[in-house]
Amino acid sequence: MKVHKIAVLAGDGIGKEVMPEGIRAVEAAAKRFNIGIEWTTFEWPSCEYYLEHGKMMPDDWKEQLNGYDALFFGAVGWPDTVPDHVSLWGSLLKFRRQFDQYINLRPVRLLPGVPCPLANKKPGDIDMYIVRENTEGEYSSVGGRMFEGTDREFVLQEAIFTRTGVDRVLKFAFELAQKRPKKHLTSATKSNGISISMPYWDERVDAMGLNYPEIKHDKYHIDILAARFVLSPERFDVVVASNLFGDILSDLGPACAGTIGIAPSANLNPERRFPSLFEPVHGSAPDIYGQNIANPIAMIWCGAMMLDFLGYTEAHDAMVSAVERCLVDGPRTPDMGGTASTTEVGMAIAAII
Amino acid sequence: MKVHKIAVLAGDGIGKEVMPEGIRAVEAAAKRFNIGIEWTTFEWPSCEYYLEHGKMMPDDWKEQLNGYDALFFGAVGWPDTVPDHVSLWGSLLKFRRQFDQYINLRPVRLLPGVPCPLANKKPGDIDMYIVRENTEGEYSSVGGRMFEGTDREFVLQEAIFTRTGVDRVLKFAFELAQKRPKKHLTSATKSNGISISMPYWDERVDAMGLNYPEIKHDKYHIDILAARFVLSPERFDVVVASNLFGDILSDLGPACAGTIGIAPSANLNPERRFPSLFEPVHGSAPDIYGQNIANPIAMIWCGAMMLDFLGYTEAHDAMVSAVERCLVDGPRTPDMGGTASTTEVGMAIAAII
Ligand SMILES: CC(C)[C@H](C(=O)O)[C@@H](O)C(=O)O
Ligand SMILES: CC(C)[C@H](C(=O)O)[C@@H](O)C(=O)O
Repeated sequence: MKVHKIAVLAGDGIGKEVMPEGIRAVEAAAKRFNIGIEWTTFEWPSCEYYLEHGKMMPDDWKEQLNGYDALFFGAVGWPDTVPDHVSLWGSLLKFRRQFDQYINLRPVRLLPGVPCPLANKKPGDIDMYIVRENTEGEYSSVGGRMFEGTDREFVLQEAIFTRTGVDRVLKFAFELAQKRPKKHLTSATKSNGISISMPYWDERVDAMGLNYPEIKHDKYHIDILAARFVLSPERFDVVVASNLFGDILSDLGPACAGTIGIAPSANLNPERRFPSLFEPVHGSAPDIYGQNIANPIAMIWCGAMMLDFLGYTEAHDAMVSAVERCLVDGPRTPDMGGTASTTEVGMAIAAII
Repeated sequence: MKVHKIAVLAGDGIGKEVMPEGIRAVEAAAKRFNIGIEWTTFEWPSCEYYLEHGKMMPDDWKEQLNGYDALFFGAVGWPDTVPDHVSLWGSLLKFRRQFDQYINLRPVRLLPGVPCPLANKKPGDIDMYIVRENTEGEYSSVGGRMFEGTDREFVLQEAIFTRTGVDRVLKFAFELAQKRPKKHLTSATKSNGISISMPYWDERVDAMGLNYPEIKHDKYHIDILAARFVLSPERFDVVVASNLFGDILSDLGPACAGTIGIAPSANLNPERRFPSLFEPVHGSAPDIYGQNIANPIAMIWCGAMMLDFLGYTEAHDAMVSAVERCLVDGPRTPDMGGTASTTEVGMAIAAII
């Protein structure tokens, strides 16, 4: 039995509370499907570590983590003591770039048992994947400020789109669309307003599309696309987007499906040159930390995505089914209208698996 | 009686169909409230003009339009013959920049008689203004491409935030918030990911906030803000945003309120050094053009905003009430579930006014 080495990075706040349940569920699946897993826990990245060391992680973080098959990540951030751009650029965004996790993948599904904020939608109506470019684009630290402190002050912020960066995320998205029954890909753009990068993005989509004649692809400007997520989410299958647009859509999509508190995400290096990272969409939620009431489902769903990426599709499916059953039958944490604790929900799901 | 000179720029597609109804409604209000209006019609900007002249407008467009008190604008765009970035950068975006219409203002309201795509919301639950910076930020033509056609190809796209540009939109937004009962301002940011421009934006918001101690202001990252528009739109009052974020929110907001087809927008030069421009949020809609079924309400609502800006608040209120009554009692165009024509709805609203 191959043993997969997983690094456990619980991080801050509720990251620390949901992590044990994520591990519990993966353990249950590993037992059932005979998968070997070895967990190693790290105290960093975290804001506590930052307060002690003046940085989110030790300098040799890359060497320390590079041998792992995956990073199982809770949440990072504690804005009262460390500004978000410090904690996140010092951890999550470093992983994404340095480990070349150029795909951010988020399933968006309307599930039974989850109240949907949209009127007249039923389970199954929303079922899409957001494929987000995860290393370049609008998220950049290139640029600067001039005439600081005067009336003429201004700031330049570069967005950077490389052919390598754009093409590989498009390829991933077209290939994902190929595996889906609808074979439909939507590209998010804003080429009518942002006049250099976005026309380039459109151009690469069209070029890549030539390689996938069986995929129907269309494009929407991000403003109307956001509107369509609310008005007709059922028309989307795979949606590919730049770093910023993907960020927006992959919160908006789960919000429309009522799953923002339970949505998972995967930061993938598809070539497996570096470890991929699996993290809940929810953050560290300082406001509810310490009460053991955080919903562990996102973390558990992340565990399922992690096993899928490691090659265990059946284990993934069993975990997702267990989550679905728990959403219908309970127990439920307060955010889903129940009174169960994080631990109770985690144990219930592990038991189903 | 002062006579206001209004330039009529119907543009393309349904812009040409809704414009007569916009004029009809403004005329009705002008008659009732004794307002002098002189209309002058222009054949440009339009894609037809482009096909004939190779540009969207004559070279002296600025001189020709500069004397008007307002531009009453339908919609521009006909992507089958002229790419959107050509038609829009050649018209609308030129107006915004050259006439320094630095405020894009959009009311978002859940109205009686309008089906809302969100579950469990009732009229009044959504009532906010989006204040969008309208001249700089992410909408820029600065940047370029390198290593064209090779594997190393990349594109740089600059976003530009000036202190002048940021402060004046913030000032407008804080002052608008001051006139509202809730006195609440939300700023859209993404300072946790976009690490130069957005921290600067936040900094200016905090600085401006010091001048308005009675306004409660908070900030949300654009991803979670988009989600909140769907999950709890009632918590927003005035939302201020950069050009791109404002663009997204001001389509998403009306989508959540069910009004995307009938939403108005104003492009304002608050100092009145240049004419301001009033345009429906909907575009030229080539797919329904020619059938006289486009909903004229957005255009009429724009007329109301125009009169408000010219100083006629009562006329504005009467026009908006007439729109509200028509939404409840009909007649309705097909997009609202009715069978009435553009003209019928326009005439009905004018009659109410
Ligand atoms: C057509 C387009 C350039 C424009 C914009 O993005 O500003 C439109 O979406 C708007 O909001 O007025
Ligand atoms: C925390 C933040 C930097 C991050 C992002 O914008 O990428 C988050 O919103 C996400 O989507 O993972």
